[in-house]
Parts: sequence; structure tokens; C-alpha cells
Amino acid sequence: MTHPQPASGIFEGGVHRFPVRVYFEDTDLSGIVYHANYLRYMERARSDMLMLAGIDQRRTFEAGEGVYALANLEIAYKRPAKLDDVLIVESRVSRVRAAATDIEQSIMRSDAEKRELVTRAVVTAALIAPDTNGVQRPVRQPADWRKTFTSLMEQAKGDHAV
Amino acid sequence: MTHPQPASGIFEGGVHRFPVRVYFEDTDLSGIVYHANYLRYMERARSDMLMLAGIDQRRTFEAGEGVYALANLEIAYKRPAKLDDVLIVESRVSRVRAAATDIEQSIMRSDAEKRELVTRAVVTAALIAPDTNGVQRPVRQPADWRKTFTSLMEQAKGDHAV
Amino acid sequence: MTHPQPASGIFEGGVHRFPVRVYFEDTDLSGIVYHANYLRYMERARSDMLMLAGIDQRRTFEAGEGVYALANLEIAYKRPAKLDDVLIVESRVSRVRAAATDIEQSIMRSDAEKRELVTRAVVTAALIAPDTNGVQRPVRQPADWRKTFTSLMEQAKGDHAV
Amino acid sequence: MTHPQPASGIFEGGVHRFPVRVYFEDTDLSGIVYHANYLRYMERARSDMLMLAGIDQRRTFEAGEGVYALANLEIAYKRPAKLDDVLIVESRVSRVRAAATDIEQSIMRSDAEKRELVTRAVVTAALIAPDTNGVQRPVRQPADWRKTFTSLMEQAKGDHAV
Repeated sequence: MTHPQPASGIFEGGVHRFPVRVYFEDTDLSGIVYHANYLRYMERARSDMLMLAGIDQRRTFEAGEGVYALANLEIAYKRPAKLDDVLIVESRVSRVRAAATDIEQSIMRSDAEKRELVTRAVVTAALIAPDTNGVQRPVRQPADWRKTFTSLMEQAKGDHAV
Repeated sequence: MTHPQPASGIFEGGVHRFPVRVYFEDTDLSGIVYHANYLRYMERARSDMLMLAGIDQRRTFEAGEGVYALANLEIAYKRPAKLDDVLIVESRVSRVRAAATDIEQSIMRSDAEKRELVTRAVVTAALIAPDTNGVQRPVRQPADWRKTFTSLMEQAKGDHAV
Repeated sequence: MTHPQPASGIFEGGVHRFPVRVYFEDTDLSGIVYHANYLRYMERARSDMLMLAGIDQRRTFEAGEGVYALANLEIAYKRPAKLDDVLIVESRVSRVRAAATDIEQSIMRSDAEKRELVTRAVVTAALIAPDTNGVQRPVRQPADWRKTFTSLMEQAKGDHAV
Repeated sequence: MTHPQPASGIFEGGVHRFPVRVYFEDTDLSGIVYHANYLRYMERARSDMLMLAGIDQRRTFEAGEGVYALANLEIAYKRPAKLDDVLIVESRVSRVRAAATDIEQSIMRSDAEKRELVTRAVVTAALIAPDTNGVQRPVRQPADWRKTFTSLMEQAKGDHAV
């Protein structure tokens, strides 16, 4: 028995590229992808990006050390995506701070003939963890995570493909 | 047999207030509402706001006259919402153009003691309709819709409750 | 400032009736409610039913005493629901066991002229809690919960409205 | 620039196997996959299965020839799935009728050491299309689709791997 694998992204020069297919669940009655669902695609891409970069969110969460939560998001909807479309979420780290990391994400639709922008977003993700009273608070990102993000950001700066 | 009614919002001085309860479906493993789901709450509030303002989206869509689609969204996540929380989505029209309307939306959690901001967003909604080739394109909003939105915006300016 | 309230259900003779409105998020490109979303409506109704019956799921979960999880579900899709439809989820307890409770749920669409069945389901919900190794296991429902469910079941038997 | 591809399933002796990874969006506060989301996984698998079998749902829908809708679903939840789990949806056609097809679907979690059943379902999917009044009605499946499904069912009968 062979083992088909779920979608996985790749890094190219600091830019992470992650594939998504549009299913019925993603569309609404207007025939196109429901606007909130692009945020799900972008979160899948960020999770894959972290995994490939060696950051284990599930282990960190289960150890009580925190979970990434969005602090801010700006998104521009440029072209609609439709059922069966194959999209690529392109992500690059654009800023690294003590408790938060900014990531630019573009969702592209590309085929042999053209390459089109579907949506573009900038998200700020902050690490939050329960304090001694159980209240979720922003906490400093581990030093090695900041180092990883900074390295990805430096690599992505040299890449103008996105 | 009595007929319980689904949630409905109200207008107060041009500001639309719409209630939402948080269910299991809205949360993720971090124990709080998944970030994309606030966009669903805001869309429910906008749909209710349009309905109360006399704009029938279903009829307009079924008549082939278009559907609102988001062109742009900015959202700041301030405090997490949790299971069973009762939230109020407060919406006010902030700008009216030929093909698009801007709406400011704040999600508040309030009880007897305090009133807290959960998330705040500005969304730009554009009316789109299929052109003669079936491609979705922005179209002018009907004159009476623009008039309705402008009136709501004027009323909301005088209200500093949000 | 008035406080609009989220939808709340009511009990009539042991039958719980909970209202839901269909929003864009619930539909798919075929123009009707996406099949998995009826399960969300039914879960909202069960959560409301438990709340009205005095069972506090959030407190129980936060106390580490468990959470309801579905063990089994059978659902028949009879008529499609559409954008803006107002639906009523009718729920009645049909069986109570040590660790699980069966609930029959029908989603109805009704207006002045007629009353139509949209979907009908039977769900088995089991209380699960982490054991000493952190593995989720079925646990006995508290005696007062079983008593509450049994009482609702007895009341519902005498009611043939559903 | 390389092109990462979205997940795709494979047929082995009439059994379709499709991979899914669990993301934050799929979980709820109990830390496991929200029950309705397994239906989304199963629908993705059926869409992929149809695509691989040469049935183009998007073209059929856009041509006004119909769309598959669930008529019935039975699902047993056996073990919870968690964040980052890699799951395989195994699907096999179990019955073919004029207007509907039954598909058995099991979601498995497997690693080097063991192979566990997460959920098992039987779904009945019916082809529906708008009649001359625009009302959705069940219609006969095209003869070549029935032939394809029958062939898959015959092949799957000889395969006891699931």
C-alpha cells in the first residue's frame, strides 16, 4: 500500500510557497471562494512554513509554552478564486520583533499562460501563553525562533520573485 | 407552538448593533475563537444591517444584479473571545462611493461590569455582477442604496457611542 | 444603549426549539447550505439546550471534567435551505445511558403557509475527559445530568408536535 | 520557480486514498478535530476521487447539468484526530443506482507503528439539477458515470485492504 502525502510547501530563497486546491466547502453561493476562507489558506501556509523551519507548534502548545495568535491582518481581494482552482500561497517574513513576527502573504493562481494575484495580505502573528492566572498574554518568542525568522527575512529580501 | 426568532440587530442613531454567541464551531484548540471566524460574525452583521436598511441581497443575487464582495479588510485583534461569550458587532458606514461602501466594525464583549473591545475592522465592500462574458466585475451600487448608506453615515457621525 | 440578544431556544413539553438564520458563510456554489453546516446548526441547538437545562459546558470543560463529543450521527437531507432562510432546529432526548445520550434533531423551515422538513438526524453524544495519561476517554455522565435528560425524554414522549 | 502541488489521492484496486493534514482551523477548544470537519475531509476526498475518475464537477455545474448533493450520511467517530495529524481518507463505491451512488469512507491515521480508524461513514450522493422552475431536483446520473462507478465498485470488492 502506497502512502499519498498531504500538500507540503517549499522554501525558495526565503520565500515559502504552499499549494491549495479550492473545494466546495470553500465557496459560497456567489460561486467564488468565501472571503474568510482565504485566511484559512494563509494560516495553513504559515503552519507549514513554521514546520519546515523547524518550529513545532503542536509540541510548543502541548508544553504550555504558547501558541501563535494574529494581532493584525490587512488583506486586499484582487481576483476571485473558483472551485478546483489550484492556488499557491507565497509567504515571506517581513519584520521580526520580540513578541511578534510580520509575514507578507500573496495567493497566486498560475497556469501555463499566466500568473495572477488573487489576494495579498500582511499579518502580524504574536506568541501568546497563559500567565499564572490562566489569562492569555503576549510572550517573547524564543531566541532561536527569532533567529530563524530573521534568517528567512534576509534570504527573502534578495528574492524578487513575489 | 411558539416561534423563537434568530438573532436580529438594531439601529441606534445610524450605528447597527448585532448580537452573536460563541459556539464550539468557532473555537480552536487554543481555547479561543479562531481568527477567521470573526470575519463570519462581521459578515452576519453586515447582512443583517442591509436587511434592516431595506436592501435585499438574496433577491438582488437571484435577479442577477450582483452580490457584495469584499475588496479590502483591515482587522486588529485586541482580546480573545471564548466559548459562550455574548458579543455585539457594532457597524457604521464610514464612506460611500459609486461602486463600494466602507464599513467600520467593532466586536465588543459587554456585561454588567465592563465593556471590552475584542476586534476592530474596516471593510470595503464592492458590488460585483457577471458581465456579458460571465466574468464578475464591480458595478455601480443602485442610487437608492447609496442614498441609504449616506443617510446611515450621516446619522452615525453624530453618535460617539462606538 | 439597548442590548440585542443572540438567538435563544425554548423548551415546549421536553422538545427544544432553536432558531437559525442562513448566512453567506453557510452556502456553497450550488446556492444552498453546504451539507456539513447543518451539523453546526445542530450543535448550536444542543449547546443551547444544555444551557437551558442547567448544564454548563464551559465550566465543566474548564474544570477538566470533560466535554461532549459525538460518537455517532445519522442524517437525512430532505430539502435544501437557502440564504436568508429562517430555520428551527427541534431537538428531543431519545435515549439516556451511563456515558452517552441520544438526541433526535429535525431542522424545519416554516412560514405562514407551510412547515417543511429540511434535515433529520439522530446523534449520540458521549462525555469524554482526559485520563491520568492525558488520553481522552468516555466517562460517566454526572447523575444529575442523566436525571435532567431522562426528565426531558419523558416530557418529550408526550409531545407529538415534532 | 518550482510548482508545489496540492494533495492528490490515488486509486489502488478501486479504493481511493486521499491525504489530509489537520490544521488549527479544523480543531475546537477540546483540542481535537471538530466533528463536522471530518465531513469536509470526506467531501474533498470524494471530489478528488471523481476528478481522478474523469468526472468534472465544475464543468458539469457550469453547464447547468447538476451537482452532487448528499441525501444521507451515517458516521461513527472512533478516535479523535489532533493538530498536525496526517490522515488518509479511504473511499470505495458500495452501491450504484440511477440517481444516487453510495460511498463508504474511512478516515485512518497511520504511522510506522500502527494504523488506526478515526471515523467511518457511509454517504449517499445524489445528482441534483434545477428543473424548468429553478427548483433543485434529483436527476439520473449520466450513463458513463454509472459505468465508471460500477467499475470502481467491482474493483474494490476484490480489495480487502480497507
